[in-house]
Amino acid sequence: MKFWHTMLASGLIALNTAAVQASQWQALPEQVPAPADNPQTEVKVELGKMLYFDPRLSKHGTLSCNSCHNVMEGGDDSRPNSVGISDARGGRSAPSVWNAALLSVQFWDGRAASLEDQAVGPVLNPIEMAMPSEAEVIKRLGELPQYVELFQKAFPEEEKPLSMSNLAKAIAAYERTLITPNSAYDQYVKGDEKALTEQQVRGMESFANLGCTACHSGANFSGPQLPVGQGFFMKFPTFPGSEYETKYDLIKDTGRASVTGKDGDKNMWRVPTLRNVALTAPYFHNGQVPSLDEAVRVMAKTQLNKELSEEQVADLVAFLNSLTGEFPEQTMPRLPSNPNTTVLPLSDAELAGDSTLLTH
Amino acid sequence: MKFWHTMLASGLIALNTAAVQASQWQALPEQVPAPADNPQTEVKVELGKMLYFDPRLSKHGTLSCNSCHNVMEGGDDSRPNSVGISDARGGRSAPSVWNAALLSVQFWDGRAASLEDQAVGPVLNPIEMAMPSEAEVIKRLGELPQYVELFQKAFPEEEKPLSMSNLAKAIAAYERTLITPNSAYDQYVKGDEKALTEQQVRGMESFANLGCTACHSGANFSGPQLPVGQGFFMKFPTFPGSEYETKYDLIKDTGRASVTGKDGDKNMWRVPTLRNVALTAPYFHNGQVPSLDEAVRVMAKTQLNKELSEEQVADLVAFLNSLTGEFPEQTMPRLPSNPNTTVLPLSDAELAGDSTLLTH
Repeated sequence: MKFWHTMLASGLIALNTAAVQASQWQALPEQVPAPADNPQTEVKVELGKMLYFDPRLSKHGTLSCNSCHNVMEGGDDSRPNSVGISDARGGRSAPSVWNAALLSVQFWDGRAASLEDQAVGPVLNPIEMAMPSEAEVIKRLGELPQYVELFQKAFPEEEKPLSMSNLAKAIAAYERTLITPNSAYDQYVKGDEKALTEQQVRGMESFANLGCTACHSGANFSGPQLPVGQGFFMKFPTFPGSEYETKYDLIKDTGRASVTGKDGDKNMWRVPTLRNVALTAPYFHNGQVPSLDEAVRVMAKTQLNKELSEEQVADLVAFLNSLTGEFPEQTMPRLPSNPNTTVLPLSDAELAGDSTLLTH
Repeated sequence: MKFWHTMLASGLIALNTAAVQASQWQALPEQVPAPADNPQTEVKVELGKMLYFDPRLSKHGTLSCNSCHNVMEGGDDSRPNSVGISDARGGRSAPSVWNAALLSVQFWDGRAASLEDQAVGPVLNPIEMAMPSEAEVIKRLGELPQYVELFQKAFPEEEKPLSMSNLAKAIAAYERTLITPNSAYDQYVKGDEKALTEQQVRGMESFANLGCTACHSGANFSGPQLPVGQGFFMKFPTFPGSEYETKYDLIKDTGRASVTGKDGDKNMWRVPTLRNVALTAPYFHNGQVPSLDEAVRVMAKTQLNKELSEEQVADLVAFLNSLTGEFPEQTMPRLPSNPNTTVLPLSDAELAGDSTLLTH
């Protein structure tokens, strides 16, 4: 394992791996195993869904998990980067929440090992949901009787069911239900030869033959299945110096190195899933590449040092569109209330600017 | 009609009206009639729901109708005022979208006659969703093939189905489904004497006897049923000079006069519904009153010149809590995509501030 990790981390993955993986087209599992310390239960998933959609988990009551990871579309926000509290912008593009449960590390730089680890990050991040402290999150939730009750039901054996770690567990449990099986690709892999068009099949072959599968392997097209917390990272760009580097500002953000501080991790990134990639433009960690065809060109050049023909690009894009899965129908949660008052501070009402425009 | 309008507009409504209305407790209708030029159809409602939840109707792709009028809770945003584009704040508190279809005018100042008239306002308001023009809205929607198709299906006989007025019609059609029947009060009115507690019944009697029903009459507790566009307005405060006026900054916003410019309309406001009022704190047009008990005290003093006992306040609050209805379960819409690219501008990616904090 150590050996492999070093190989992967240094971007030296052998190309013959591609050939091996290419013969292993896998359908997306319909369910994802939960960790031993956070088993799925119906009440926990329902609680997690409420929390996921509750904007009161943000300082001003305006942002929920769903604001940046919108499950009503591709699981992101269709933006280059996200808009956090007080119009703050981070430097990275929201990854999709769909099938995130299949990734062995979370965030672009893999700085969270699990969905549970990830979930608390944005809530407390000063440029995202910006809650001032865990204590303040728990205080707010504690003022909503239905949450108090649901935390008790979801975590019945705990002395303090309403906690930040249980909030994270509930959200993670909900996120484990966000799987998009049965794409055209999945149907094809399961034996329905008519599920893909001829162009998509050509694209699929190119995808393997060009070497895309060296990194985008496995059922989730995000690399081999690794233990939770062990990320599958790759250098981007692997072949430096292309025109795209400056055009799309690809190397300023050092990726994994921004977490570890190690030189060897510079511009190393978690290999993202390609599931539903047609729905998650704009592309890459900084969301600077507007379209999937251009993203394909960038990848071919920076990772494989290849220039593709327009036909190859079109074939690959067609294939990638076959990875758009079925999104399970969901009911909207009813968010708990604290009747007759609000958990949000009235002190936040000041006008930004001095508009005399009428609103509501 | 003219006579009544003048009476109402000048705040001179006779108190004996209260007694009349008090004998007319009405249950909430389960359906609201649609206007002749915008009949309800399934496809139109579904389109309207998508549009209602689609943040791409805002300049930065961050705000949907649901951001301020959250149907997953009381239909507002639990805030004193709302947060629009670039952290802009307007001066008014979001009214609930639930049962808004039963109001004869829209907005606090009644400046929109119908749901259809209302729906386009926030989309183009520079401190709300801030789309630069109708043309830009139509351009964005036109880039999403599924919207183009749904507009055609919802408005099959029109030459240009994709238009701002049809967008408004579709959203209004969806909003007409947002009715919350069968509250404890409704059950009581329909004959179930056990539906209300003793305290709630006492509160109901106080509500009539004190004169609250002078304004908050009818099935929606928002005044008599009037033709669409003919608002039921009341002066607030009717009895000026109370401590609440300064404490809660009640008169700075001139209400209806900010639209008509008429002195007689100064501090005139549309009488809001009390349906689900327990879920829509903080209260009043500027959202400066944090709790329902305090809102009851403010109303008694400013509108009826009465000081209530704490018991009366508690009874009234208990009664008002009986107006919380049943919220119809809803499925989440799937938002249309324009595969392989985004309708949102990449030029909006700049950092606000210069944070080095990691996000996604």
